Amino acid sequence: MIENRRRFNKQEYNDRVLKTRKAMFDKDVELLIVTDPANINWLTGYDAWSFYVHQCVVIGTDNTLFWFGRIIDAAGAAMTTDLSAENIIEYPDNYVQSEQEHPMEYLAEILQKKGLSNSKIGLEKDNYYFSARAAESLYRGLPNAKFVDANGLVNWQRAVKSSQELIYMQRAGQVVEKIYQRVMTVATPGMRKNELVAEILHAGTLGTDEHFGDYPSIVPLLGVGEESAACHLTWDGGVIPADSGICMELAGVHARYHTPCSRTLYFGQPTQEYLDMEKMVLESINITLEMFRPGNTCGEVADVFFDFLKKQGFDKANRVGYPIGLSYPPDWGERTMSLRRSDTTVLEEGMSFHFMPAIWLDNWGFEITESVVVTATGAKCLSNVPRKLLVIE
Amino acid sequence: MIENRRRFNKQEYNDRVLKTRKAMFDKDVELLIVTDPANINWLTGYDAWSFYVHQCVVIGTDNTLFWFGRIIDAAGAAMTTDLSAENIIEYPDNYVQSEQEHPMEYLAEILQKKGLSNSKIGLEKDNYYFSARAAESLYRGLPNAKFVDANGLVNWQRAVKSSQELIYMQRAGQVVEKIYQRVMTVATPGMRKNELVAEILHAGTLGTDEHFGDYPSIVPLLGVGEESAACHLTWDGGVIPADSGICMELAGVHARYHTPCSRTLYFGQPTQEYLDMEKMVLESINITLEMFRPGNTCGEVADVFFDFLKKQGFDKANRVGYPIGLSYPPDWGERTMSLRRSDTTVLEEGMSFHFMPAIWLDNWGFEITESVVVTATGAKCLSNVPRKLLVIE
Repeated sequence: MIENRRRFNKQEYNDRVLKTRKAMFDKDVELLIVTDPANINWLTGYDAWSFYVHQCVVIGTDNTLFWFGRIIDAAGAAMTTDLSAENIIEYPDNYVQSEQEHPMEYLAEILQKKGLSNSKIGLEKDNYYFSARAAESLYRGLPNAKFVDANGLVNWQRAVKSSQELIYMQRAGQVVEKIYQRVMTVATPGMRKNELVAEILHAGTLGTDEHFGDYPSIVPLLGVGEESAACHLTWDGGVIPADSGICMELAGVHARYHTPCSRTLYFGQPTQEYLDMEKMVLESINITLEMFRPGNTCGEVADVFFDFLKKQGFDKANRVGYPIGLSYPPDWGERTMSLRRSDTTVLEEGMSFHFMPAIWLDNWGFEITESVVVTATGAKCLSNVPRKLLVIE
Repeated sequence: MIENRRRFNKQEYNDRVLKTRKAMFDKDVELLIVTDPANINWLTGYDAWSFYVHQCVVIGTDNTLFWFGRIIDAAGAAMTTDLSAENIIEYPDNYVQSEQEHPMEYLAEILQKKGLSNSKIGLEKDNYYFSARAAESLYRGLPNAKFVDANGLVNWQRAVKSSQELIYMQRAGQVVEKIYQRVMTVATPGMRKNELVAEILHAGTLGTDEHFGDYPSIVPLLGVGEESAACHLTWDGGVIPADSGICMELAGVHARYHTPCSRTLYFGQPTQEYLDMEKMVLESINITLEMFRPGNTCGEVADVFFDFLKKQGFDKANRVGYPIGLSYPPDWGERTMSLRRSDTTVLEEGMSFHFMPAIWLDNWGFEITESVVVTATGAKCLSNVPRKLLVIE
């Protein structure tokens, strides 16, 4: 491995592997096929844009731990992990995006050869990078294995952040501060949406003087005017008109760690509607941040927020946040807990969330959000972007 | 739908739906569940960063055609498609990233209600956004349906580009020209990798005066020095040293259409090794571009390239290109044909490829690539970036 590509010391990776093996043991999973790129990175350090082809890390409750990927990506595995050469296993290129052959057939052969074909095998069945055909190739290739859905098993191990992880997230928070500083400097009505996004991406990649900005797992999302009623539209070349609001969903990123932070901009004198909404959302943030304490559940956090919103006469059709940290496209969430009333997960110190009291109405929307870490005294924010409606006069 | 979000006229969308229904009929598929975001866009125009949750378009050989997605994304579907309100079907937010409930269970109920539960249903079984659990939820929810793997069915319909699609790809080509102009203006040894990428992303998003730059489905890939032996590493904050080579894999993008173009930069006086490699790669390009004519097969194109390379004493472990056009992360390829010896697909006028004679060696790499469209007289390049080793003195 190349030293400057190592994000954590060897001990931390060892601890993660141990923690994962323990969780596997508890769930009676002997062998886990890890396809989530963030889980792969978290366990081994592997970091490359190669998740558009099939790849995985295989971890066993014995001492099995190997990377499996495309032949041309093995060099990247050697550069970014501590795995020894025999634990970097490549498949030939004819398996890439072929209708005839599937990489998971090749993996099945390897597991056969290693004597692992009768194992109880955990699969990340709802991961983006574990397709239906990947699963069915394994079922056919390993008829004596017993398969179980272990989706989220590794993701859950990632929920409580280490001190080094929190340092990366704080750096990501500094990156998102830089982005908003740039936005406030350059944004003007009459600007094209893509011009504004060009500045956001530039600032976000530049990062701070000390810490590089990495790519976000979701590109900047802009909702201008009536388009802000839709929450996941991306930019085009349209002009941002005067006297309009824009919802911006952005993250600062460092070493694959994300600190999302959404704000609403207003070009011109904000309407009373925007000012009223700002007041309500800020109040909802103040009362809900208090709730991010060890021992409270996700549901209890959500209850406080949704009860407040209801009292104000508003409804929100979706969850009010999700865990964050290490991630790869297409999502910067960790896909474990959700801040919704029904979620009974108990908060622990060091868990990190994107708290997202975004309100989408019929023809406009409003977002002021914070990324936070759970502490004994409530939420600690991971970035310090002015928490208000950002007005460009 | 919002007029400025419409990328093609209604007739073109109708033609695509018709073409897809015909292909379904030929393959005896009555109902197709389309999860590839590029296929969804191509059929309906739907364009949003919402593919991190389950969504699909369902198309039947009858007149079935509806979008199915998360409740908060329905507004985006209304804004970017011509679908009527009853054909924009949303699922509630409690199905999002839940361990208890899966959106495809909800879709199964909808298909039951619509009387479509006994159909012969095609699935895109190897798509990123069609997980093993998505498939198994449908199998359980629709016990009387017959399921077939229709992976790539829509992708294949996209292979020959329409004149409007080629216009978008040419615009994307102009965007990538702008990116390389910026690179040649700003790149200096001593610069940090992320500083160079910040400029690339800025120029790529700005686009041209007339046409906005859209986000690439793969972020800029930089291989600096020995890291260029690995082909899919992304940037960090490392300094680009003098007297070093960098492989850059980039694309210009407009309205989701991609024109990739890779180049190698050299900071300082190139070594003889680089100059020899440049000569060989340029010659391989010259003789291979001739081959992109209707009637030739992908394999015949690959043969000419690989035979030439072999004669020069080089080997390349992977395919030498793939089809391109409309796409979403994590890949800008279309995942149908490949430029490899074994591929018997016959080229047709209007097919478009990223021809990629990249050479990765043990401790360095070299890339000069071209995006091309097949014409009666051979390949027509979609961008005009100086085809040479780019030297920064």
